Amino acid sequence: MISSTSNAQVKNIEKLMKSSRERTEQGLYVCEGIKMFLEVMERPGALVKAYFAESFLSDQVYRERIEERLTVPYEVLSDSVFAKASETKTPQGVLGLVRCPEYTLKDILSGKENRNPAVLMLENLRDPGNLGTIVRTAEGAGIDGIILSRESVDIFSPKVIRATMGAIYRVPFVYVENFTQTVKEVSKRGIRTCAAHLAGSVCYDEPDYISPCAILIGNEANGLTDETAEAADIRIRIPMEGAVESLNAAVAAAVLMYEVHRQRH
Amino acid sequence: MISSTSNAQVKNIEKLMKSSRERTEQGLYVCEGIKMFLEVMERPGALVKAYFAESFLSDQVYRERIEERLTVPYEVLSDSVFAKASETKTPQGVLGLVRCPEYTLKDILSGKENRNPAVLMLENLRDPGNLGTIVRTAEGAGIDGIILSRESVDIFSPKVIRATMGAIYRVPFVYVENFTQTVKEVSKRGIRTCAAHLAGSVCYDEPDYISPCAILIGNEANGLTDETAEAADIRIRIPMEGAVESLNAAVAAAVLMYEVHRQRH
Repeated sequence: MISSTSNAQVKNIEKLMKSSRERTEQGLYVCEGIKMFLEVMERPGALVKAYFAESFLSDQVYRERIEERLTVPYEVLSDSVFAKASETKTPQGVLGLVRCPEYTLKDILSGKENRNPAVLMLENLRDPGNLGTIVRTAEGAGIDGIILSRESVDIFSPKVIRATMGAIYRVPFVYVENFTQTVKEVSKRGIRTCAAHLAGSVCYDEPDYISPCAILIGNEANGLTDETAEAADIRIRIPMEGAVESLNAAVAAAVLMYEVHRQRH
Repeated sequence: MISSTSNAQVKNIEKLMKSSRERTEQGLYVCEGIKMFLEVMERPGALVKAYFAESFLSDQVYRERIEERLTVPYEVLSDSVFAKASETKTPQGVLGLVRCPEYTLKDILSGKENRNPAVLMLENLRDPGNLGTIVRTAEGAGIDGIILSRESVDIFSPKVIRATMGAIYRVPFVYVENFTQTVKEVSKRGIRTCAAHLAGSVCYDEPDYISPCAILIGNEANGLTDETAEAADIRIRIPMEGAVESLNAAVAAAVLMYEVHRQRH
């Protein structure tokens, strides 16, 4: 059992939680919590190593389930060391190192099961809770995948992972260096790019989203950059009553993605 | 200038930020930030007292605007005392004590401007960020007001206020003791009560929301209580693809409120 916070593995967990660069270099991220862990344990090749708090393994039901199904090495941490390593205030006593999946633009743009592709493109999104919520909503709305600008928040950060409620395992995503250029390429492939814009000329429920489409959402404070908004095929607007100046980014994304879903079903 | 954190007024600001009971007893809440402050300053009878950080008043533009328009007493705090009193990590140097508005059920249920009422009812919502986002979205979607169960998070808590982005000043709301009973009363007044429910038998875009309607959203983890779901006129479902078990409460509320808005426009 590891009972020192200066243990090299504990230090590495902390690094992987804090640093996006560490995650990229090691190709690993940390998932925390029972539900997230049990799901990743069942995904072939995803889990690399497991860590349990001492008290977690004293629960017979979990212990048996894990002994029966776990195929990767694991370590036990004393409860206080686990609490130190954990990102949450009330740790559930289980975390795993998970291989960062790698998707390509092609994975996302090809659509699935004879259905036209519907993708989401996020430019410079910064809030981890927003991104996690958006990934969760995207899966629910049947979006094929998410394309993010390189400057967006790291999808493997613990707060994002948690807010996805497991959707991180199931929704393909890719970061791109030149976002505006990618919008143009997506458009050239016959996928209509629809930029969410406060000054959009088209109400969001007017376009046909049964055809291949991409919904573009910008930064929380500033929206999409002018270059990206101009590069898109159309600029769509969510009407707002009262004195509201804009909607929360995750809310705007949800309203648009569910309009795509509504039209398709 | 107040330069001690043990000053009674500074202590009172902290109390009003932390304690829902204090806010109820004093009938006051705290708004922070330039934008929120400038808006409340213009609302007759809302602002009771203002507090500025020393450095804030050194900005000539703000200083002039405030000297010209402020009609209530104010105090200046040293920057370090202000930082201590503030709820935010990077305080903007301005906060106000604001009178808690009081609305009645009738304010909310009567609708406005010859339009059928559309209301939102929240049962045991717990997350401040969710509530704030929902208030903001409700204003955008043209909802007449929000009815909350007594057990829900306090709408005057600083995190809620901040997430509303000013909508707190403009959307009427009321807390009720017996939520299920209120659902029945709302229904008796001819407002169709539509409970968001994972096992709902009606897809959310099927009902007519042009008629008077109320959308019911439950707790983040458990949804609506069984009694409330049964008391509602219909149970509506937001379809979900993939392995998503539920949507974030603010996202579900947004999808439903904007469906109401879509049908009405």
